[in-house]
Amino acid sequence: MLIVKKFGGSSVADKERIFNVANRCVEEYKKGNEVIVVLSAMGDTTDDLIAKAKEINPEATKRELDMLLTTGEQISVSLMAMALNALGVPAVSLNAFQVQMHSTSRYGNARFKRIDSERIQHELDAKKIVVVTGFQGVNKYEDYTTLGRGGSDTTAVAIAAALHADSCEIYTDVEGVYTADPRVVPNARKIQEISYDEMLELASLGARVLHNRSVEMAKKYGVQLIVRSSLNREEGTLVKEVVKMEKLLVSGVAADRNTARISAIGVEDRPGVAFRIFNTLAKNNINVDIILQSVGRDGTKDISFTVAEDDVKEAIAVLEKNKDALTIREIKHKDDVAKLSVVGAGMMSNPGVAAKMFEALFNAGVNINMISTSEIRITVLVDEIDMDRAMVAVHDGFGLGEGL
Amino acid sequence: MLIVKKFGGSSVADKERIFNVANRCVEEYKKGNEVIVVLSAMGDTTDDLIAKAKEINPEATKRELDMLLTTGEQISVSLMAMALNALGVPAVSLNAFQVQMHSTSRYGNARFKRIDSERIQHELDAKKIVVVTGFQGVNKYEDYTTLGRGGSDTTAVAIAAALHADSCEIYTDVEGVYTADPRVVPNARKIQEISYDEMLELASLGARVLHNRSVEMAKKYGVQLIVRSSLNREEGTLVKEVVKMEKLLVSGVAADRNTARISAIGVEDRPGVAFRIFNTLAKNNINVDIILQSVGRDGTKDISFTVAEDDVKEAIAVLEKNKDALTIREIKHKDDVAKLSVVGAGMMSNPGVAAKMFEALFNAGVNINMISTSEIRITVLVDEIDMDRAMVAVHDGFGLGEGL
Repeated sequence: MLIVKKFGGSSVADKERIFNVANRCVEEYKKGNEVIVVLSAMGDTTDDLIAKAKEINPEATKRELDMLLTTGEQISVSLMAMALNALGVPAVSLNAFQVQMHSTSRYGNARFKRIDSERIQHELDAKKIVVVTGFQGVNKYEDYTTLGRGGSDTTAVAIAAALHADSCEIYTDVEGVYTADPRVVPNARKIQEISYDEMLELASLGARVLHNRSVEMAKKYGVQLIVRSSLNREEGTLVKEVVKMEKLLVSGVAADRNTARISAIGVEDRPGVAFRIFNTLAKNNINVDIILQSVGRDGTKDISFTVAEDDVKEAIAVLEKNKDALTIREIKHKDDVAKLSVVGAGMMSNPGVAAKMFEALFNAGVNINMISTSEIRITVLVDEIDMDRAMVAVHDGFGLGEGL
Repeated sequence: MLIVKKFGGSSVADKERIFNVANRCVEEYKKGNEVIVVLSAMGDTTDDLIAKAKEINPEATKRELDMLLTTGEQISVSLMAMALNALGVPAVSLNAFQVQMHSTSRYGNARFKRIDSERIQHELDAKKIVVVTGFQGVNKYEDYTTLGRGGSDTTAVAIAAALHADSCEIYTDVEGVYTADPRVVPNARKIQEISYDEMLELASLGARVLHNRSVEMAKKYGVQLIVRSSLNREEGTLVKEVVKMEKLLVSGVAADRNTARISAIGVEDRPGVAFRIFNTLAKNNINVDIILQSVGRDGTKDISFTVAEDDVKEAIAVLEKNKDALTIREIKHKDDVAKLSVVGAGMMSNPGVAAKMFEALFNAGVNINMISTSEIRITVLVDEIDMDRAMVAVHDGFGLGEGL
């Protein structure tokens, strides 16, 4: 079996934790498996490097920032190879140049184009544990690029895809994917198996265990993902294409507080106006999430939508600037809202799910601002103050805490 | 003019010093020159990284150590590029993979084989100051290698040679090459010009301003070297092929305390014995410096030689092991000795130099243990306790402190 294991920065923050990871890898290796380890930068290294850069030049280019930040993972992987050697196992560390991890040219937020398998395969054939830098690629200019948030997860999946690994294990500080955030919902339950699509919905809805780009890639190349804890031996959550049939309607509940509602009031009620509003926002790189359009009255209508809180200021500025062209009479916004979603492959063929969710929210006295649905997801916008209560109510409403 | 500037780790140890270096580079750039900057790792970075490695694995392989250490220069160059940008000048940092600095495969002590000029030239053509990592290369396995002690000097010279630079400036914490160590000889004088050969002799004799490998390379490719201070604007010392004719007999005096004498007593006095002794040492990678062979008596002779102090133990062990085969009766050694050398192209055609040196030492009451000479150098072995006094005496004897 060829197994890719990814560990985040906190899992390699000091000598003791480095050896904890090394021991787990050696254990796997001694069972006769081939092991590739993908690592992030140790502990706060990345933040420290960013602080150093800001001290020198607060407007440092992303190109030079990437050149600086990629040293972080290189330090992790060389120390890990030394630790594995100290445990008597042959190992080699490799960076993005050595593997040839080709990325798009965009500094600070690149995507992988192609990962060469030759060097890694060569080292595996020499019976070594191969330790690879996460988070980084090399673009067509032969410059380092970083992959943005969650980048090391994507590195692990991309390498697993390129080398046709049997499984890709993402180690985190939680035991797997949960039916809801256990800090909010005490009887939240670890999910044993979940499909790529459900995981994608959960990941993009604020369940932070996996970055959605890594899930997309795993789905595309059929990489079997396992999310599990680096601190214990619990089994974790398996993410794959087809999951067990005895599934519940709903797999999990996710919440996202980083959301705000903007309303364009008194927009002319004629074709093309909504298109122009969202086209203008898209051109300015503002992602719009839920959209609600009121029924027209007196020749005008109201259009509301949600954006990430970080984008509120810019979205309003863009709309204000084009207020006349877009026939907007007034722009309003509300920041103290949150999104609550239920996700589940089972709801596709089951029309009662939405009703059940609304009932649970009604019983808990939670007001629903907006609603949005996909084939396997229902999202509602609620007041931020109601969020935790809403989450517990919905989690209980679907009986998620009771186990299979 | 294309100018290569090399700054050591202490010159980029903190924000203030980074900007000091950046300002000097910008000054040069604004005069219309093309500028390449070669940097070592900041301050104690390399030592800190080695300490980290030792903590994980005291027997860390050189391959992984090099992978770890090369991050140090990458941090320096990216921060320097940011500083240059902050001063309004376009700049780009490059590592050994990006430049393609090809080295021999020996980890920890590699040599350059070839430096590609293409990427650097491309960036110079784009009017950028190019900031390059010193001390590192990439071997045929596509692995990082480091160049060993003084490696960044060699990087600067190699790049100057590859790009046909007009001059290569090595910045240090002293103002240039001196006629003797100013800490020992108060009236030591800065040398204005010195030939490659003289510099080579001085460098290999313990004058630590330039590493001899970098001088060898400068001589081979005719790179004009300037040794000067990063702290002030003094002119420094020019190292080149032909120097001014009004030269003194002797350019400088150098001392090396890291030396010990070993004597093989009672060796059989027949052909081939000395060869076998030194061949045995060479096979064990022990460099022998001065050799003195006594006149044979009673069919035996004594052979004495000097080695670096670090090699004494091994040299003795090697000789003890082969004592019988090498016909050695007894092995003695003396650690508290030092080498004192005078170097000067002028002595080639001037037979009185040795006599003058011995006279100065005699007048100072310094006993000479051994003598060794080259065309432009005379070295004597003295008791370590006499060293400073001997240095002052010889420096005065040749009138080196008086200026041109």
